[in-house]
Amino acid sequence: MPDTLQRSGALIDPARLDAMMTAVSAFGGGEDGSMMRLTLSAEDGRARDWLGAWFAGNGFAGKIDPIGNQFGFAGMGGSNAPVVLVGSHLDSQPNGGRFDGALGVVSACEAIRAVREALERRGVLSACEFAVVNWTNEEGARFQPSLLGSSVFTGAAELDWALERRDGSGISVGEALSSIGYAGTDHVAVPGAYVELHIEGGPFLERENTRFGIFTRFWGATKYRLAFLGRQAHTGPTPMAERLDALLAGAHVVTGLKALAGAYGLDLHTSVGRLEVFPNSPNTVPSEAVLFIELRSGSATVLAEAEERLNAMIEAAAKEAGVGFEIRSVDRRIAGPMDAGLVGLAERSAAGHGVVSRHLDTIGGHDAVSLAAVCPSIVLAVPSVGGVIHHPTELTRPEDQAFGTQVLADMLMTLATDGLAALQSRDEAA
Amino acid sequence: MPDTLQRSGALIDPARLDAMMTAVSAFGGGEDGSMMRLTLSAEDGRARDWLGAWFAGNGFAGKIDPIGNQFGFAGMGGSNAPVVLVGSHLDSQPNGGRFDGALGVVSACEAIRAVREALERRGVLSACEFAVVNWTNEEGARFQPSLLGSSVFTGAAELDWALERRDGSGISVGEALSSIGYAGTDHVAVPGAYVELHIEGGPFLERENTRFGIFTRFWGATKYRLAFLGRQAHTGPTPMAERLDALLAGAHVVTGLKALAGAYGLDLHTSVGRLEVFPNSPNTVPSEAVLFIELRSGSATVLAEAEERLNAMIEAAAKEAGVGFEIRSVDRRIAGPMDAGLVGLAERSAAGHGVVSRHLDTIGGHDAVSLAAVCPSIVLAVPSVGGVIHHPTELTRPEDQAFGTQVLADMLMTLATDGLAALQSRDEAA
Repeated sequence: MPDTLQRSGALIDPARLDAMMTAVSAFGGGEDGSMMRLTLSAEDGRARDWLGAWFAGNGFAGKIDPIGNQFGFAGMGGSNAPVVLVGSHLDSQPNGGRFDGALGVVSACEAIRAVREALERRGVLSACEFAVVNWTNEEGARFQPSLLGSSVFTGAAELDWALERRDGSGISVGEALSSIGYAGTDHVAVPGAYVELHIEGGPFLERENTRFGIFTRFWGATKYRLAFLGRQAHTGPTPMAERLDALLAGAHVVTGLKALAGAYGLDLHTSVGRLEVFPNSPNTVPSEAVLFIELRSGSATVLAEAEERLNAMIEAAAKEAGVGFEIRSVDRRIAGPMDAGLVGLAERSAAGHGVVSRHLDTIGGHDAVSLAAVCPSIVLAVPSVGGVIHHPTELTRPEDQAFGTQVLADMLMTLATDGLAALQSRDEAA
Repeated sequence: MPDTLQRSGALIDPARLDAMMTAVSAFGGGEDGSMMRLTLSAEDGRARDWLGAWFAGNGFAGKIDPIGNQFGFAGMGGSNAPVVLVGSHLDSQPNGGRFDGALGVVSACEAIRAVREALERRGVLSACEFAVVNWTNEEGARFQPSLLGSSVFTGAAELDWALERRDGSGISVGEALSSIGYAGTDHVAVPGAYVELHIEGGPFLERENTRFGIFTRFWGATKYRLAFLGRQAHTGPTPMAERLDALLAGAHVVTGLKALAGAYGLDLHTSVGRLEVFPNSPNTVPSEAVLFIELRSGSATVLAEAEERLNAMIEAAAKEAGVGFEIRSVDRRIAGPMDAGLVGLAERSAAGHGVVSRHLDTIGGHDAVSLAAVCPSIVLAVPSVGGVIHHPTELTRPEDQAFGTQVLADMLMTLATDGLAALQSRDEAA
């Protein structure tokens, strides 16, 4: 590996990368490999502090914006050099894994450092400034919606609205930011490009024995927060025919959504990941059931058709159970392509190591999907053992972490040399 | 009415009854008709003090047992006369109604007093001793399980265990009893019979324009706490075919249970009142879904058959969703008949007023269901306007309260005259 790793001249250090992954995993990590680092929790605060200390110790200028996105500017390039932002997120799902997000932040640190070291050795000024970013609440586990920090950054979400989102205990994003000291005041401008390295979180790379992937397309998502409204009653004497059972309607939608996905083969993903039942007492007919529904597809047509069928399903379920319903929120994320220039650059960088890049769809959503609306953006993918994500057994092997980080460093090295013009050469790319 | 009311010679006084209902309703009653008298609360303590004062003022000997059940012995009959216990409970649901329970205690006071007055006028000794009872925590709203006082009384529940039950604030039954001064030390023996007058809390008497009902049968219940165990995964990229969705299996059981009840007409009630989902995050496939399932029926055969079909349903749902399951607890309450002798006596007493008794099933449970395990027991029913129970609009009309109390007094008069032998004459009853 050392031979191939040196091709760009920006040599990343796998041991240093590994040490950083171990260090950051201490914040919320369990002995079983699990990670519990909900956004803006005490653990997240400590992980941010660790990253801030790393910035300070490595000559990166730290900045925090009002939604708590954390940046570290490497101080490369002249004062007018375009900024290339590189990173991901340090927050995790409850009982999640260690690599989802964290690898992207840590690899950004290592890759930028390697590029800076290489340029310093040559005595060359960079054509770009590089900055690490750690986005707030990518996961959407504690606060909804997900991608909150990057959405505020791009202007897709209002800051005041975002600060007022509340978790299950009624704590707002704004309060949580203050409690860990990350209610920042810095303004950070939209960058010239955004690059994110992420675990695949799916089975394709491992299955096809491929070391490197590029998310070239992002799926769209339509998310409903749907409440069925029935009537509270005793589960003992209340005749079955007189019950208005909100949970029953919810159950019809859960089973119906699974059948709906089946009708579209691989082109549609559906889910109900969260279900809130009220009053949720063993001997009381539920008066309210709130479903968090997701439809996801790479095709806008499929997504629109599925939403139509979902609406018909909701009406039928409500009728069947004799209950009412309210669609409390709808969130639509449009499907689209990642930046072709960055795709070409990533392909050439991987090809430099003799690796053909596997094109992937990003279905789950990444902060790069938010950024894609305002600047050239991309997500690079490294293999997940068993395709696992959001689980303590989530794993990307150290050699795959290092390889992905090296390809990232090579991309940044090209940008440092050629500037954003490197993204215009896509027509020549295979 | 006075003419018919005098048939047994034990004439109850509707005005006196009404005054007592008004008096007891002051403790926890709201202007809208609501009643908030959670068991062992300050309001319950004041209602108990009021009842104790009534006992003292009417020559009833008060007793309190260690679980706080409150008794008032009328001092009738010789020293070896069998005891007939008459009563219900003064505790209410939160935001409940005034008549559920309270009418049974107040009507017991009035009926026993009427019998005693009638016997005194004639100078006749009673063949039975009569005692009023107010059971602790019938409702199960503040402390679980319900029927706690009567279950300790019959030995179905251990006293020490019962005293350790805790409410949502962590206060134990024992502490609550002490705080209102009702941690008694009296021992009260199992009676020769138990009679309870209660509001129907259902629609049948009113719908059929019938003034009087008898709960002749109590329903059994089979309760499962069932966990489906799937695998946590991201709702985005995880292919539909690879998801092991615990909630999907749960939804199949929720809809299946509704269909199962439909297959048995009115003979089976099914429910899932509580559903716990883990990790319950919008973009995570649920790894665990815990269902609190109830099957209820008046027929042991239907209940057993339904349980078999439930088990087949659970296996099919687990297979369909590709998940495992654990039945974490099973609780079975056996269905059974109320005492035929008491049913016959109640029918004859109502027939004395030209009223045919409507037979009813008690599904929700009454203290008489506890007592039925140790002595002849029965619940008499008076109409509920609109079938409403556990709600501020709960109402039993004054004339229906009076009629039920008169039938009760007539039953007690027969027992006072013939002793428990009155319960052996069931064969002659129509």
